[in-house]
Amino acid sequence: MPTISKKGHKMPASPIRKLVPYAEQAIEDGKHIYYLNIGQPDIKTPEVAINAVKNSNIDILSYSRSQGSETYRKKLAAYYNKHDITVIHEDIIVTTGASEALQFLFSSIMDPEDEVIISEPFYANYIAFSTATGVNVVPAICSIDDNFALPSIETFESLITPKTKAILICNPGNPTGTLYSKEEIEQLAALAIKHDLFLVADEVYREFIYDGETHYSIMQVDGIEQHAVIIDSVSKRYSMCGARVGFLVSKNKMVMETVLKFAQARLSPPTFAQIASEAALDTPQSYFDEVIHEYVERRNILIAELQKIEGIKVAKPKGAFYCIVELPVKNTDKFAQWLLEKFDIDGETIMVAPANGFYSTPDVGLNQIRIAYVLNKESLIKAVHILKEALKIYKD
Amino acid sequence: MPTISKKGHKMPASPIRKLVPYAEQAIEDGKHIYYLNIGQPDIKTPEVAINAVKNSNIDILSYSRSQGSETYRKKLAAYYNKHDITVIHEDIIVTTGASEALQFLFSSIMDPEDEVIISEPFYANYIAFSTATGVNVVPAICSIDDNFALPSIETFESLITPKTKAILICNPGNPTGTLYSKEEIEQLAALAIKHDLFLVADEVYREFIYDGETHYSIMQVDGIEQHAVIIDSVSKRYSMCGARVGFLVSKNKMVMETVLKFAQARLSPPTFAQIASEAALDTPQSYFDEVIHEYVERRNILIAELQKIEGIKVAKPKGAFYCIVELPVKNTDKFAQWLLEKFDIDGETIMVAPANGFYSTPDVGLNQIRIAYVLNKESLIKAVHILKEALKIYKD
Ligand SMILES: Cc1ncc(COP(=O)(O)O)c(C=O)c1O
Ligand SMILES: Cc1ncc(COP(=O)(O)O)c(C=O)c1O
Repeated sequence: MPTISKKGHKMPASPIRKLVPYAEQAIEDGKHIYYLNIGQPDIKTPEVAINAVKNSNIDILSYSRSQGSETYRKKLAAYYNKHDITVIHEDIIVTTGASEALQFLFSSIMDPEDEVIISEPFYANYIAFSTATGVNVVPAICSIDDNFALPSIETFESLITPKTKAILICNPGNPTGTLYSKEEIEQLAALAIKHDLFLVADEVYREFIYDGETHYSIMQVDGIEQHAVIIDSVSKRYSMCGARVGFLVSKNKMVMETVLKFAQARLSPPTFAQIASEAALDTPQSYFDEVIHEYVERRNILIAELQKIEGIKVAKPKGAFYCIVELPVKNTDKFAQWLLEKFDIDGETIMVAPANGFYSTPDVGLNQIRIAYVLNKESLIKAVHILKEALKIYKD
Repeated sequence: MPTISKKGHKMPASPIRKLVPYAEQAIEDGKHIYYLNIGQPDIKTPEVAINAVKNSNIDILSYSRSQGSETYRKKLAAYYNKHDITVIHEDIIVTTGASEALQFLFSSIMDPEDEVIISEPFYANYIAFSTATGVNVVPAICSIDDNFALPSIETFESLITPKTKAILICNPGNPTGTLYSKEEIEQLAALAIKHDLFLVADEVYREFIYDGETHYSIMQVDGIEQHAVIIDSVSKRYSMCGARVGFLVSKNKMVMETVLKFAQARLSPPTFAQIASEAALDTPQSYFDEVIHEYVERRNILIAELQKIEGIKVAKPKGAFYCIVELPVKNTDKFAQWLLEKFDIDGETIMVAPANGFYSTPDVGLNQIRIAYVLNKESLIKAVHILKEALKIYKD
């Protein structure tokens, strides 16, 4: 039998995936599951986006331009300018989700064995994209004990080697909800310039910022133009993950030229989704106000309820809609499975994401889970109650 | 300034791309262009596909499953079974176009420096996907002089090295329109089994077969199960290139497991597009009958008109909607540019694809172009007339 690639062997399976059969069995057994495990919001997609597709008038569903439709890119440029990021449409390439933007970027700026420094814990698929391109992840380790604050700039600097090509941050962060300050961003930018590195910021949660704080983007730093790349997406912003539209933003022409070559090879991003995404830019502010209000309430309730549970630690998120929770168990992989397989309260249980998949360092995060607060408040309260009762009887 | 990757430097730009500024200038100058250069059909998308999206009822546009929606995969399995390819939905992964299926497959079965044998000329982006994964293309060279027939099995066998992982064919072929016979497919299958290679068939044009011939798929060969992978797409079949839906079909479980890991990393294929593609499976047969009829007429007219031009050679395509034409010019890159920049008849000119980009062998195909007969008959006649007159005065 012909064999698959070494890289294919190394590709990590999704950290949730092992749990799926147990979830399916639980459903078959008639259990109700509260899904705290994935970043798929329960928030409605803006009607303006859905209606644009429903009212579209398409005879031939043809390829769009590889860099995305020009009208959309122009409106996107206006969006960024409104958020104090000075770009024109030529600085933007539309991709099939932030996922594709990340892949194009990794391939455009890094060769196999090159290194990217990432503040850890991080979005699990950064590992997958690194593996796919043969790039090595060098973690800048953050700790729940100081609320997952950015490691010191000295720590970052100590991790730089001749193979380092980029520093990647997620701001605000999945899975931690950490928001970086203007000072932190400026320090990272200075470091990137000093060592001639790319500074990449995954800002897909850029509008989910709470407690009156504001988001400071890497592209607001003066002098960073040739180093900065923003990764962005409509998935979470407009609760339209299924559209599959993201973007890569940079003023570095070589980067844009190169990313475009990868974009041309796959022809174009999806057409219906671009129609929806362009229209989504007209979403009224009231939609966002309500959504943010909802997430803040959920977060507050979630954290308050979690803090009532003995023996757990939780870092308070300032943005996005995730938090990392440390549990008094040895291995959350097993605990998560047990929750689905063996536990319920009145026929209800929860599905959580074991946090180990968010770390590249082996055996770290084994006692942590990530909770996505993408459920309504009532469900969140019930879900935390289930967690609490489960911890009382679970033995590992 | 930080530098881009070596791979990024090597990535080929689209062979058409250099011509785009000249086309834009021509349009600005008020010229009308007949586009013979791209595989974007002018055929209408089936209404049933468009209407499914327009009538869909979506509150939250959420991620679909990474392998594609289950109902769609089940219907796809039924489609293949109808075409004598015995598969179940688990043998199918839905991707963002055949483009993504090719990328996932390349990454799943090949590591950098591995080799894939491809019958040449071939779809230009095979080079791009090979470059992106560091894989080396080994061409099995076909010639216009024998209608781009498949090279002998001995030739294929002589190209196999310890690094060879796969043989890739496109059947029927872009850019040649060549259709492989049952015997040829069986020989390739036997070779793949003998040398423990994957046999990959890009069958995105599988339904565009003319002259009463039938398509014989690699997956119809007995005993090929562990070796065969089909790459497929809705793009051309239903004239819905902008959907961005394709699929990878294989009964090799290791391949499917590995492809799924890449699929999970990018989360999911586009949701609206899957709705359209699932509905497209209900397209009435009359639609295809008309489309095939139309393409046959176009091909016949195109070939007949081309054959009237002195000094050119053309291979008669048996499928797809392309043909390679050899012109009495030295460099079709320059000729194509000249057509846009310097030539017109009553304000009209043509855009053609220089064929060099379809060859990995340097300096081959320099006197060839690819014509896509995706225009109506009247336009095709005018376009060939323009080509004929242009050749009369062009000097290189
Ligand atoms: C931090 C981060 N980046 C990127 C992505 C991928 O988003 P997209 O749906 O745009 O591919 C996600 C999705 O959860 C994410 O959390
Ligand atoms: C032979 C071949 N394979 C694959 C593709 C890519 O198709 P898709 O639009 O499904 O990505 C094309 C598009 O022209 C093609 O001609």
